[in-house]
Amino acid sequence: MKRAVLVAIGDELLSGLRREGNCCWLAGKLSRAGWDVISMGVIPDDEEKIQATLSQWIGKSELIVMSGGLGPTHDDRTRTAVASFLGCSLEIDRKAYDEILFRYPPEMRKNLTRCADSQGAVPVLAKAVHNPAGSALGITFTACGSKVFTFPGVPREFMAMAEAELEEEMRIREKTVCSLYIAGWAESLLKERLAPVIMQKDLHISILPSPGLVEFVIRGTPERIAAAEREVRELMPTDCLPSGARSISEAIISQALQKKITIACAESCTGGMIGMELTSVPGSSSVFLGSAVCYSNQAKKKILFVDDSLLEKYGAVSSRCAQSMADGACRIFEADLAVSVTGIAGPGGGTTEKPVGTVWFGVSYRGKTEAVKSIFPGDRETVRIRSAMKALDILRRKIAETGE
Amino acid sequence: MKRAVLVAIGDELLSGLRREGNCCWLAGKLSRAGWDVISMGVIPDDEEKIQATLSQWIGKSELIVMSGGLGPTHDDRTRTAVASFLGCSLEIDRKAYDEILFRYPPEMRKNLTRCADSQGAVPVLAKAVHNPAGSALGITFTACGSKVFTFPGVPREFMAMAEAELEEEMRIREKTVCSLYIAGWAESLLKERLAPVIMQKDLHISILPSPGLVEFVIRGTPERIAAAEREVRELMPTDCLPSGARSISEAIISQALQKKITIACAESCTGGMIGMELTSVPGSSSVFLGSAVCYSNQAKKKILFVDDSLLEKYGAVSSRCAQSMADGACRIFEADLAVSVTGIAGPGGGTTEKPVGTVWFGVSYRGKTEAVKSIFPGDRETVRIRSAMKALDILRRKIAETGE
Repeated sequence: MKRAVLVAIGDELLSGLRREGNCCWLAGKLSRAGWDVISMGVIPDDEEKIQATLSQWIGKSELIVMSGGLGPTHDDRTRTAVASFLGCSLEIDRKAYDEILFRYPPEMRKNLTRCADSQGAVPVLAKAVHNPAGSALGITFTACGSKVFTFPGVPREFMAMAEAELEEEMRIREKTVCSLYIAGWAESLLKERLAPVIMQKDLHISILPSPGLVEFVIRGTPERIAAAEREVRELMPTDCLPSGARSISEAIISQALQKKITIACAESCTGGMIGMELTSVPGSSSVFLGSAVCYSNQAKKKILFVDDSLLEKYGAVSSRCAQSMADGACRIFEADLAVSVTGIAGPGGGTTEKPVGTVWFGVSYRGKTEAVKSIFPGDRETVRIRSAMKALDILRRKIAETGE
Repeated sequence: MKRAVLVAIGDELLSGLRREGNCCWLAGKLSRAGWDVISMGVIPDDEEKIQATLSQWIGKSELIVMSGGLGPTHDDRTRTAVASFLGCSLEIDRKAYDEILFRYPPEMRKNLTRCADSQGAVPVLAKAVHNPAGSALGITFTACGSKVFTFPGVPREFMAMAEAELEEEMRIREKTVCSLYIAGWAESLLKERLAPVIMQKDLHISILPSPGLVEFVIRGTPERIAAAEREVRELMPTDCLPSGARSISEAIISQALQKKITIACAESCTGGMIGMELTSVPGSSSVFLGSAVCYSNQAKKKILFVDDSLLEKYGAVSSRCAQSMADGACRIFEADLAVSVTGIAGPGGGTTEKPVGTVWFGVSYRGKTEAVKSIFPGDRETVRIRSAMKALDILRRKIAETGE
């Protein structure tokens, strides 16, 4: 496997004012094309540090890509650092810079010409890299078997230049990575369940948990990956999202479209999160009708027809209320299927009987209604996110269960 | 200035499967408290690399914080790497791990107990760090003047532990940084408007845009910062969020509580995002009654009482429909104030007359209703987020306008 090292240059990244994204993006691209990204780092706009980083990796990595420090301001030091590293001077590459100048309207050229000594200068032992999205030239050179590129840090420019210059490097020749999305499992339990796959020596497995959904990444030869994917799907047939779906919402919308099932929600503590997730999928309008976010008891009664006596006897966070909310959502939206959520997200509102984190879910499908309870640990936002994800998974499983 | 080095550990970060966020977040916090973050890096789940990184920085930085590699799976190597670096063995810290165990419900403890040798083990020459948000212990030790912390990589856990353990380090002793949040301005226009402040030589200004809200960061002496803050607030009195509020929702909830105004929403293309944003603020239940997410026209008619003939004549994405939706939300939730959103988020559904990105907003306050239109560039998610932020800002300005 060929190695790559990615370096972001910029004081604004080290001070936390800006979040590094260029190297993360490129790491994903290179990695899927079979590269081993051995290091990613952020260093300051400092000539010595830039030179030291080049010295550290030249000859040890086939590809080195640097982001940032090529602009016209006083703290852009990458050009001079590369020139010092190569032991040569900087010279304006008129031809390469003119190509950029003539893309701009005449009234802007004068100002850009004044920046030529910063944006258009290239170490004489290196080559200019055209910038199709901005005005600063990039730099490239090869030394000791390492191909080095420096691109500007503006994300749009960085990506455009990487896509043009590293086209060959980023090309996916064969499928050596596969992601399976598994819903409703905790990381530790999943690890046990899939031990037979994880233990296989010729596979490299990564387990990436997010609330309610685990991404199970398999790396290996195309044949071994295909076999491992089959194995995982056989071990947990109802938990894996269908291939193509990268979120529970995507799985719901595509399955509901296929089975012609219309969907609605009734939300309390999630505040609209379930509707938001479902409608993040393009085309969701064909199956998703709406969500009644009823935060107050008054709204639950008036909009979802939850019975007053039921609320008094069992409270809003109860099996009965959850069921009644799901029924109400089916009724008012005229939906085939509805899920409801009512719970205590905290920080206030908990009791000994119903502690913070207690959440009831109702699901109603063509007149049949059920309810389940969960108790989620964590703060307000965690309880809300986990509740929304659980509700989505309830929808997904219900749709999967039903005949065409 | 004290130096800090931040290191994220994880193959999933190097392969671009996950985007590093913990070190970026901590860099911002430390930097605001006067630390010099001299390096940030991402290294693989590899014992040797973790040890080499420790060797590289121990004695050269007062603080070293590592993120990740402490979980229960096979590729979590940070514990063993730290033990090898210290030349000692790992031992389960029963007392520290029990503190975590007993936070979980009894049925989950058995499973967590089985993970004790991975999640509860600590090098004998180091100390356990309590995890208030998850089940894996952190590790801390001091060597050659460097204080080292390793926290789990799950962002919620990393942040909770950093906030508890690095409270002293992150404390802002002298206000040398001040953030003002400014709603409803584009970055470039804001730069012109605030040029008199930005030009001041003894201030260092950073402008950090996010959808609908710009963070205007001022650095300088406490006196100069205070003067600059006053100046900005005078230049744009209705656009700056009140001090203390870091999001439009926070500003809305605190102002509505103060003025005793109840709020509801009617959402179409935002799918629940506005309700979700408002309910993310603890205490929102006192003023936020609910949101009617009416994605289908049928739901708009039946639930929000939008007139059939109105929909036929003007369409769902129209001034009339937006107004009718806001009125409907006030009526069904019995709210003082309601905002509505109806638009075309794309990628489908656009026409020459109403292109993708066309969004109408309605606002109804005690019987008086208005509507405004925006056309947002960008993809589906961008249009949705900008729509939700604009709707929130409409609510915020309306509440600010009204007397107590």
